[in-house]
Amino acid sequence: MADELGEFERIARFLAPLAGPGGLGLADDAALVDCKAGCRLVVTADAIVAGVHYLPEDPPELIARKLLRVNLSDLAAMGARPLHYLLTTALPAELGVEWFGRFAQGLEEDQRGFGIELLGGDSVRTSGPAVLSLTAIGEVAAGMEIRRSGARAGDLVWVSGTIGDALLGLQVLRGAYRDLAAERSDYLIRRFQLPDPRVELGQLLSGVARAMIDVSDGLLADLCHICATSNVAAVIELDKLPLSSAAGEVIGREPELRPHLAAAGDDYELLFTAPVEAAEAVAALSARLRLPIARIGRIEPGAGVRLVDADGRTIQIDHTGYRHF
Amino acid sequence: MADELGEFERIARFLAPLAGPGGLGLADDAALVDCKAGCRLVVTADAIVAGVHYLPEDPPELIARKLLRVNLSDLAAMGARPLHYLLTTALPAELGVEWFGRFAQGLEEDQRGFGIELLGGDSVRTSGPAVLSLTAIGEVAAGMEIRRSGARAGDLVWVSGTIGDALLGLQVLRGAYRDLAAERSDYLIRRFQLPDPRVELGQLLSGVARAMIDVSDGLLADLCHICATSNVAAVIELDKLPLSSAAGEVIGREPELRPHLAAAGDDYELLFTAPVEAAEAVAALSARLRLPIARIGRIEPGAGVRLVDADGRTIQIDHTGYRHF
Repeated sequence: MADELGEFERIARFLAPLAGPGGLGLADDAALVDCKAGCRLVVTADAIVAGVHYLPEDPPELIARKLLRVNLSDLAAMGARPLHYLLTTALPAELGVEWFGRFAQGLEEDQRGFGIELLGGDSVRTSGPAVLSLTAIGEVAAGMEIRRSGARAGDLVWVSGTIGDALLGLQVLRGAYRDLAAERSDYLIRRFQLPDPRVELGQLLSGVARAMIDVSDGLLADLCHICATSNVAAVIELDKLPLSSAAGEVIGREPELRPHLAAAGDDYELLFTAPVEAAEAVAALSARLRLPIARIGRIEPGAGVRLVDADGRTIQIDHTGYRHF
Repeated sequence: MADELGEFERIARFLAPLAGPGGLGLADDAALVDCKAGCRLVVTADAIVAGVHYLPEDPPELIARKLLRVNLSDLAAMGARPLHYLLTTALPAELGVEWFGRFAQGLEEDQRGFGIELLGGDSVRTSGPAVLSLTAIGEVAAGMEIRRSGARAGDLVWVSGTIGDALLGLQVLRGAYRDLAAERSDYLIRRFQLPDPRVELGQLLSGVARAMIDVSDGLLADLCHICATSNVAAVIELDKLPLSSAAGEVIGREPELRPHLAAAGDDYELLFTAPVEAAEAVAALSARLRLPIARIGRIEPGAGVRLVDADGRTIQIDHTGYRHF
């Protein structure tokens, strides 16, 4: 009973203020979502677990914001505009009011930033580590959604932002690269803890990109998903991989690390294919959003993803996915 | 990496067959949901935890079906027709392929029964107890949704089916009422493990009921939610509480238990208010669905919920909510 009252109070105090009109102040069994004529809704859900996807001692604001952003990244990868989200939390008793208040604060900050609203959800107790599950809802003009299956031989492969920062940020958190300048370590850590889902770019790529995915499992693994559903192959040039200056410094010292960045996940950049003729449109979007978008390879007939060096020689790496800590 | 591969395989083997066309075979970042003209979507999410909401040794099929049904009950309480769901599972490593296969089988059976489809979700590992979170999506004709806030003084209070079975079923599972006939114990256990969300009734009550909720926290506590959001009071006559013959037998032996059934949760019946003139329409729905719907009280001006005996005297009970085990 104490738990139940605690839940109602927690909802009233921290979550109800986050609810939009569709959430009915979180006072109903379910929430209402309107869909504009000519639009489709786009829905995605992701869960994160303390000790698997984040460290229990991470700042609760950042945990909340990363959870939200990971889901917004999935909407972005479909070209959708984010609208709402539902949240279910299974929390251990030791995470008290202060933790939850800071968690809600993180949600509030990102809600404002991304123009979205809480619709509803559930909060329960667990005797194990916290499990946080979020369902995000967006909209896209019917027929304008960008799927994984649209890649065609001859397309160029593009990726936004920089790749590998999140992996290096995690390594820094674990004590690696201690002699990096603080500014660079902080940058890498932030890229791991607080990704920037490319929400605007995703929407603007409707009609430009043929296939798209966000880089979560790892660039090569995510490209594999595109290739498998599109029935094509891809060749990625390692030297074209866009690196931040912080990542560039690390790679300058340990060049053998570079292929691993191609396999690193959690960057939440957009990886897409587009016909050669779209190159100018992509460049224009890059300029408009002041966001680098790099051409890193091409789509070919066949199957699978091949990483090559500047001379076109295949580079073997020991895994193509992202290893959680 | 083993986990990740395990996840892909598990999705391909067990979950992809459950996906409808909107789920794109679970091969995309997010799923697409169409909304008919003149309709609104209704969305709800609930999470359950092993050892809190179910016993770890419960049959996985039943866990899956209860999780689904609890969410369908929330849709029913808004008068919505269920369409889709998303599922996130955080599972401990010891729940292997056999458990997950049976869990997916339960989903499959109820999907068919309720005419709904899996849209997407996530599956992750936890070092703690399993946490299962489900988001259900339904539709309702715009303006026909039934909220908690519509109750008016003078309304009658109705409840479908029978109340208290789930609590007694849980007690039977814990070893109580050992001398009940097996048929009756089995009935009570089933009511706890596999509720029947009143999906059809909920939709048919659009335009009849003024306020509605499903009985999950406990009949009195749930009625409190209606009263609080509607700014009214309610009086419930204990003798009118509809009991199954199994519950009737238990109460025959232990009459002092009856008020506790009014506070018991997890029955997932529909509790609603309707104007006096709607009584015939309610009776007609009851006959059409062959589902008892009992008039158990009335709405009055004021605040709070009062439980009374046949002579109108207030009955005190020691808690108004549902205590998890």
